[in-house]
Amino acid sequence: MSPQPLSPNNVRDLLDSVEAFLFDCDGVIWKGNELIDGVSQTLDMLRWKGKKVVFVTNNSLKSRAQYAQKFRSLGISVSPDEIFSSSFAAAMYLKVNHFPSQSKVYVIGGEGILEELQLAGFTAFGGPGDANKTVDLKQNCFVEHDKSVGAVVVGIDPNINYYKLQYGTLCIRENPGCLFIATNRDAVGHMTASQEWPGAGCMVAAICGSTQKEPIVVGKPSTFMMEFLLKKFNLSCSKMCMVGDRLDTDILFGQNAGCKTLLVFSGCTPQSVLQDPSNNIQPDYYTSKISDMLDLSGK
Amino acid sequence: MSPQPLSPNNVRDLLDSVEAFLFDCDGVIWKGNELIDGVSQTLDMLRWKGKKVVFVTNNSLKSRAQYAQKFRSLGISVSPDEIFSSSFAAAMYLKVNHFPSQSKVYVIGGEGILEELQLAGFTAFGGPGDANKTVDLKQNCFVEHDKSVGAVVVGIDPNINYYKLQYGTLCIRENPGCLFIATNRDAVGHMTASQEWPGAGCMVAAICGSTQKEPIVVGKPSTFMMEFLLKKFNLSCSKMCMVGDRLDTDILFGQNAGCKTLLVFSGCTPQSVLQDPSNNIQPDYYTSKISDMLDLSGK
Repeated sequence: MSPQPLSPNNVRDLLDSVEAFLFDCDGVIWKGNELIDGVSQTLDMLRWKGKKVVFVTNNSLKSRAQYAQKFRSLGISVSPDEIFSSSFAAAMYLKVNHFPSQSKVYVIGGEGILEELQLAGFTAFGGPGDANKTVDLKQNCFVEHDKSVGAVVVGIDPNINYYKLQYGTLCIRENPGCLFIATNRDAVGHMTASQEWPGAGCMVAAICGSTQKEPIVVGKPSTFMMEFLLKKFNLSCSKMCMVGDRLDTDILFGQNAGCKTLLVFSGCTPQSVLQDPSNNIQPDYYTSKISDMLDLSGK
Repeated sequence: MSPQPLSPNNVRDLLDSVEAFLFDCDGVIWKGNELIDGVSQTLDMLRWKGKKVVFVTNNSLKSRAQYAQKFRSLGISVSPDEIFSSSFAAAMYLKVNHFPSQSKVYVIGGEGILEELQLAGFTAFGGPGDANKTVDLKQNCFVEHDKSVGAVVVGIDPNINYYKLQYGTLCIRENPGCLFIATNRDAVGHMTASQEWPGAGCMVAAICGSTQKEPIVVGKPSTFMMEFLLKKFNLSCSKMCMVGDRLDTDILFGQNAGCKTLLVFSGCTPQSVLQDPSNNIQPDYYTSKISDMLDLSGK
């Protein structure tokens, strides 16, 4: 079925049939550190109607606790266990797959990944700690890597450098069985309100390029996180609606999981991309921003 | 036909039938700054026999003049026009495609690319000059890019950082018709004698990941450089032999161009990889290092 613009009629159906709304954050709730218009009132309306609300974000720079803090600083009360970030997903992937506690994890990415890995009981290093390491390709230059690294987790890394690329590559190529885990593969994202920036897809591709291996992806559109959402809600996926600004992550994730899907144009996808003949990912509904749910439902 | 180990019999045929030898450098002539055993004597023998000798390298860190200097420092006399580097290929690609002189070129890579572009009359920037630029993803952080950039050239970049990734991505995504040129896509290479390091394939993949575009590749295995070799030699490709240590660049390049091919194990490909059932690139000949040509031919 072709996607429907959100309207007073279908927004009522949507609100009646859905019991849990899954929101992406960047481009849906905020851009950089600015809340998008009407977000706060819309979340209040959904909660007032008894809907469950959670946040499913591919941005791995922060941990769940750090995201809760960001929500609070923007005037929205959210508890860490309502947040499903790809940093948390990476830690949970290792946990459910019984990653040996004596093995270590090397991180190309932000503080959030390190924090979630440590909370889950793993020994992790790299990330911001390797931000200032440099390489001078002189004759005796040699990066020695830890043979006990059993997984490399790659997410968006604003401090990416050649040392980290070499370290991660060495672990994946030389440590037998070393896992290569990608938080997500978003090409770009609104890391600041003013423009888009290379996303985790950039760093993940770099490691694919040097190792010639493909990663295990734990963030959207992989449905790995869905099993944790289901445990939390005890709801069928058909009673959930995924709301996001990206076709190839948010909408695909919702569809892969069997949820209803709503695309918003407040982030990185304009209406022209949705309607371009080359696009083959179609949400159930689309609208300009999430507060349209509030406005169209007559408040 | 399955590849033949170099032997006293077939080395004679090879030396009789080939008039020009095309050598890769890293892993064939040298590792880092160390000459591989017997290289100097082997080149002398080939020249003494009247063979033409050129060097075709994907390593874009140096210009042709800088490579000639490196050869000299290792005791081998080579003139810049016997060197076909991917840095030169990038400049020639723009030249033969009539890249407008008022357009600029942004470089993710080494000094060699900048130097070749400038020698060819183009305005280029980036490269080592952007090595220390940092990005702090605060609210008002914004990278302003030059709208007159008409090409981004990406090669191996030991100073890769988030600023450069953002700058190159902005040019390719936002400047209409901006070219995305890769010097090459080697996954790793012997940048130092002691270990392999991420190659241009790593940085090129990163830009593919953020732009979701594929590059024009000018280095091996693309045969773009062959038209310059043909102009230089006035020889048919069947009278040339490409000698290299990489199946997916050197040997494929030779085969794509219709040359004979010789794989050496002195670089990044061990014999086990050649003989692995998953490998589908088969050279005409293989041997441990180029000086085997000297030893097997009875000197």
